[in-house]
Parts: sequence; C-alpha cells; structure tokens
Amino acid sequence: MGKPLRVGMCGLGTVAQGVLNVLRDNHDAITQRAGREIQLTQIASRSLKAGVDLGSAEFCTDVLALSRRDDLDVVVELIGGEETALEIVRNALRNGTSVVTGNKAIMALHGNELVELAREQGCSLGFEAAVAGAIPIIAALTRSLAGNQVGWLAGIINGTSNFILTAMTEEGQNFQDALEEAQRLGYAEADPTVDVDGIDAAHKLTILAALAFDMGFRFSDVYTEGISGVTAEDIEYADQLGYRIKHLGITRRTEAGVEARVHPTLVPKRQLIANINGVMNAVLVQGNAAGPTLFCGAGAGDRPSASAVIADLVEMARGIAFLPVKTPNVSPPMLAVEDTQSAFYLRIPSLDQPGVFAKVAGLLSERDISIEAAIQREQAIDTTSQQAWVPIIILTHVVNERVMNDAVAAVQSLPEVVGQITRLRVDQLTDG
Amino acid sequence: MGKPLRVGMCGLGTVAQGVLNVLRDNHDAITQRAGREIQLTQIASRSLKAGVDLGSAEFCTDVLALSRRDDLDVVVELIGGEETALEIVRNALRNGTSVVTGNKAIMALHGNELVELAREQGCSLGFEAAVAGAIPIIAALTRSLAGNQVGWLAGIINGTSNFILTAMTEEGQNFQDALEEAQRLGYAEADPTVDVDGIDAAHKLTILAALAFDMGFRFSDVYTEGISGVTAEDIEYADQLGYRIKHLGITRRTEAGVEARVHPTLVPKRQLIANINGVMNAVLVQGNAAGPTLFCGAGAGDRPSASAVIADLVEMARGIAFLPVKTPNVSPPMLAVEDTQSAFYLRIPSLDQPGVFAKVAGLLSERDISIEAAIQREQAIDTTSQQAWVPIIILTHVVNERVMNDAVAAVQSLPEVVGQITRLRVDQLTDG
Repeated sequence: MGKPLRVGMCGLGTVAQGVLNVLRDNHDAITQRAGREIQLTQIASRSLKAGVDLGSAEFCTDVLALSRRDDLDVVVELIGGEETALEIVRNALRNGTSVVTGNKAIMALHGNELVELAREQGCSLGFEAAVAGAIPIIAALTRSLAGNQVGWLAGIINGTSNFILTAMTEEGQNFQDALEEAQRLGYAEADPTVDVDGIDAAHKLTILAALAFDMGFRFSDVYTEGISGVTAEDIEYADQLGYRIKHLGITRRTEAGVEARVHPTLVPKRQLIANINGVMNAVLVQGNAAGPTLFCGAGAGDRPSASAVIADLVEMARGIAFLPVKTPNVSPPMLAVEDTQSAFYLRIPSLDQPGVFAKVAGLLSERDISIEAAIQREQAIDTTSQQAWVPIIILTHVVNERVMNDAVAAVQSLPEVVGQITRLRVDQLTDG
Repeated sequence: MGKPLRVGMCGLGTVAQGVLNVLRDNHDAITQRAGREIQLTQIASRSLKAGVDLGSAEFCTDVLALSRRDDLDVVVELIGGEETALEIVRNALRNGTSVVTGNKAIMALHGNELVELAREQGCSLGFEAAVAGAIPIIAALTRSLAGNQVGWLAGIINGTSNFILTAMTEEGQNFQDALEEAQRLGYAEADPTVDVDGIDAAHKLTILAALAFDMGFRFSDVYTEGISGVTAEDIEYADQLGYRIKHLGITRRTEAGVEARVHPTLVPKRQLIANINGVMNAVLVQGNAAGPTLFCGAGAGDRPSASAVIADLVEMARGIAFLPVKTPNVSPPMLAVEDTQSAFYLRIPSLDQPGVFAKVAGLLSERDISIEAAIQREQAIDTTSQQAWVPIIILTHVVNERVMNDAVAAVQSLPEVVGQITRLRVDQLTDG
C-alpha cells in the first residue's frame, strides 16, 4: 500500500458532506480499490455546521489558503459559484496540485484555460461530478467510447426541469404549480432560473460536446431555451401524437458543423429516454462503432455526486493521471440554431372558421414543409372576446429551422390566428 | 506522439473484423485520443477470408506462434472457444505481453489464474468486450463506481434470450418459433444451448459478480436456468399482473453471503430494464452512493464489441495499465439458490372443481407464504383426457426458496393438479 493521497476539499455543502460520508462509509472498499488511503487532510468552508463529522481532517475558513497549500496531492472544489471557485482551481493547478471539481459553470466557461493549465503543469483535472451526477458520462465519452466517432448525443441533464415536466405529464399540472412543488421538495431553488431557463443544462451540454467532438468548451455557441413556455395542453397533444416532451441537451456533428442546443423536445414515447422521469438524468450517445448507448441514473444529490467525485479521486490515487480533454488545434464550425434541421410541433390558436387549416397548410406547403400529423380540436371560447377558437396542432417533417421561422411568421400574421403560436422541436433520436 | 502500440490479434471472425474496420474508419480520432498509433502488427487465424482488408498487418495461420512473439505490446484474443484461447492468453501474459480478450468463458472459468498471472508479470488484462458488448460495464464497476459498495446488480446480458423473449412477448410466439426466427436472423447459433440455457449469461454474471464484490471468479457457484420453460401463456399472465418476463443475471450481497443466479424473472413493467427489447443488453447496478444506475446498449455484434476492445487498447496505449480485478485474500461465502429469497409466480394446471384454489392457498398459508395476487382463468379442455382444467396463477410475496420448493412439491401432489407446475422468480429490482 502506497502513502496516502492527500486531499484538501473546498466547500462543505450537500455534495461535500456526501463525499465525507461516502469516504467514511465505504472506507475499506475504497482504500482497497485505490491501492492507498484517500486522506481528507483539510476542509475549508466559510462556516462549520454543527453535527458535521470531519473525521481527522483539519478545518479552516479560508478556501483560497487551502488552494495554495503545497503539501496536497489533490484539491476538490465543491463550493459552486464562479469567481472564487475559478480562483481555487487556478491556484491549485498553478501550484502543480491536481483538481477534482463538480463545477459545470467554470468548466463550461473556463474549461479551455483550465485544461491547458493542467496540461502545462502535468496535473489531473477531474470533473465527472460536473455532469449528470452519478452517471459516468465523462468516463464513457473519454474512455469507454474512445474508439468511436460520436454522431450525436442527447441528454436529460437537468433534474429540476425533468421533475417539472414529469409532474406536468403525470398529474396534468401547469408549469407554475409543478415548479412550486419542485421548490417545496427541494428540487428547485428559490430562484429557479438557472435550471428552468436551461442555463445549467447548457453548461453541461458544453462539456459533453467538448468531449464528444474533441472540440473545446464553447458555451457561447450553445442555443438555450427553457421549459417555462411548455403548457399542460402541449404535453397532452404530444401524448396523443405518441410523444413525450423532455428538456434535452442535444449536440450533433453534421457535415456543415456541430450543433449544440438545449430546448424542450418531443421524443417518441417508445424511446427509453422518454421514460426517464422525475429528477433522474440520462444521456443517449450514438457512436459509429458502439451504436446507441444509454446511461441513466441520479443526476444530483449528496451521495450520487460524491460517487462521481470519489471515482475521480480513486483514479488519481491509482496514479492514473489522465486529462480527459484535449485542447484542440482546430475546432469545427458551430452551427447557429437557425441553420439546424428539426421536425416541429406547432400549436396554432385560430378562429373556428372553415378554411383556416387549409390556409395554414398552404403556407407550409409553399415552403416545402410537409405535415406528418395534425389534430384539430373541438372549439373553445375566448372569454374576453367571446369568439370561438380552436387550436390547430401540426407535426411537420424535418425542415430547416430558418424556413420554419419564416413559415411561423407567415402563419402568425393570418387574421384567423388569434394568439401566439407555440413551436417546439421534435427529435426521433435515431440516425435516419 | 509516442511510438506505436504494437498489437497482435488472434482471430478473424465477426468481432475481429469489426476491430479492423473500426480502427481503420476512426483512425485519426483514435490515434489522437490514444496519444499514439494503435498498430495492428500481425493477425493470426486459421484461414484468411477473401475480401478482408488487413491493412498493413502481416497474416499468419499460427495463433499460438503469435501469442509467443516478444515484440508485441498487446495480444488481442478473439478466437472464442476455450482451450486454445486460454493457451494464447497464458502464453502472452507469461511473455510479459498485455492482453485484451472478449472471451467470457475463459475469464469466468480461469479468471483468477489469469488475473494473478497478469499481476505477477506487471501486465494489463482487459476484458471489457467479454460482457455486454459496447456497454462499458467493466469500466463502470471497476472505476466509475469505485467509491460504492454495490448492493446488487441485475442484467440482461444475453441478446439471444432477450430477442426470443421479446418476440414471444410482442408477437405471442411460442419458444420454438421465436428461437427459429432468432436462428434465421443470425441472433442464435444452430446449437443454441449456450445462449438459451443461460450458460453464456452465467459466464458474464461470474465476471460482473467478481468485479462488483471484489471476490474473484466463481462460475461454479452461479445458479443457471434457461428460458426454454417459459411459455407464451406465462408471458401473457405476467403482463396481466403488470410484469414482463426477462432473462436476468442477478447478483446480490446479503449478510449471509453473495447470491448469483441466472433465470427468467418477472420484472415490473415500469422498470426501464423491463423495456429493453430485442438483442439489446442492459445492466442495472445498485451502489450505496450512486443509487441505481442503468447502462444500456448493443450486447454483441462486430462493431459494438470492437468498440469495447478498442477502449481497452486505447487505455493501454495511454499507458494506463490498470488491472481491473483484485484476486481477493478472502472471498465472501456464496449462497446456494435454495438459500436465497424471492417472490414467485406459479402457474398451476388444475381440475376445474370447487375448492381447488382454497386447497392451494391452504398449503401456501401453512408455510407462511402469502399471496400477493392471483388469476383464475376460464376453463380449458385437455384434449387427451377430455377433462376440464384451469390454470391457477399465483404471485407470492417474498419467501425463502427452500420453503417455496416444499410448497410446490405439496401442491404438485394434490390430486386436482393435472400437470407440471411452472414456477418463476419475481424481482422488483428495488432495495425494499
């Protein structure tokens, strides 16, 4: 047995406490597998909560001082946020200390710099915990699927959004009620915007795209759309058409470039990923050798995230100092979302008059957009205008998004269209 | 870029050709990720099929000569079978050459010897391709979940059996017709026994249990039951009760010891693993930190298996010479299947007379076996005896298997029971 791996940990929140607990609970198994002790030497956090057992670790309140110690093998950054976290990681790497972080924001926004710094210093930089909690998707993309060229991947990578959409689907709740339920249960923050607007998912998708396509971290090129525009009505119509609505991060390599987008997506019900419910996460990867592989598990939580942090620590203890990302010399072009192709779901609130559907179909047809399926409902009464209107639901074939935008604008300007058109993307999640 | 990784490959069947093709198709990406060229130096096989492009590799017909070369970094064993394959792996390791194998039989039967030999020689021994094709379950258990104590795992790890059960479920086919369809499509061998009798799955479960519980390879302790006794009728009754029948390998650590068993199992339909269809494989792992994680993908085929072989080669090229199994000093006791606990599904063909169900229920009740659900069907006519009979279907709560065996014997000897009782295990695949 070698000498202990000396670890300093910044942060003492949920995940950090998970790391403490799991290292203690599974001490013997972890030590055996790592080949040596993983020793939490020091823990730094603004304050020490009562009842937290630090074991033999020293405690200090100065996270930056910890990050500059030169007697540590690894610094674990779990404070979250951006500025101080970034400073911790930079300090440690500049000092030649390896780093494990669960921080998707700093990896998405500063990953290129940090990977380069780690490489220059000959350090490891592990961030398995930054994406999809316990699911080993970083290891899958960088190691297990290393023999593949990835065609695309699609993931449910934000548990809060998936919980809300699941509640809306299973209980017919509207967005606001489902969000409040998520907040009551602790699955959504008091300010939920980072989750429900898709920013958290976009951070994670940035990381996945960097690994899948060996192209570096390009957060500003990720198109991001949240779930607050999805209604219980849309979920119901999607269900009738054979689809579930999931908040997906999708990245795909095409001949024209790489697309990366986060948005609510209609997915065929028969796809396993359409059946990942609640706060669970899942990532579906299409490799040109492996075919489709799906990885599902807990996307967050103290112990699942700790599982990922400890996986990185065990690798480092084994001396497997592998840097999972290359800084690319050349990076493929990224496609603007307008240049991508999708099938679309349209919900068009229109007057209940003869000929409206024909007009809409005509505007689509003029632009070579063909209709895959349509639903026309019994009429509803708009309580303000007392006018009768019906939602026209249309599922289109795959079309260029720019063409669809033009078509939606044309349909929206029909006098018979009495409200805002809802437009959602549809993905079969197959190669065809 | 370092000097090439010199690889010799024994075998030129489906998977070996997949390795050739994928190494060629993805050459640049693989070289970049591996940090150096993965060079197929020599390929050995009994004969060279026309049309197979060996690239720059030499060809020879003597697999054993290849295994003894001392100028290779890695020998890849893909000839299948046992005796010669084992000799190849032994030769290579004794020579100090690392090995990648897709051979589940030699790992299940000789894994302890081979791992020990690899350790003594300081070699790597990769066998990601031996279990579940493209699914990186070996990496998951040995690396990504290294921080966990595994409670149990359950896998669909034989594509042939899953294809047959899926065809029986979706098309109402009987076993024989589904088997013949699998044979026509190339998913089953002319002699299908290794697959449908569960031996292949038992080999794979032996490997998974060795890794999950750090306990060595113990094939002879795995209980094995195939799918030939499952009828379309059982699948239909299971469906009515809310279950699918899957051929699972299950291994679990209990206080009394480790159980490892392969058998048809009723699984709740709402479980994702119940919805893995056709030749796809899946493994569900319950870790005490990660919680449940599910890995799904192609379980066989040229390119999926090649994906796993190349993953091992890339790790070796990177110099990550990690031996994924420890030979344990102490190994936990293994439980005989009679000492395990399950819920059970019983199909009891009985005379259509009043009081039969009550008699059966009485015999179960005497043994403290409680009934969770039951179905009693309209009568059928036995064409030989012209007697009317009905199948009694019973789902029990969890019970010790020894007690159930006793109960089944007692029920079977009732004069009203007119045929062989079918008894299948039921698993909720939850911790509770």
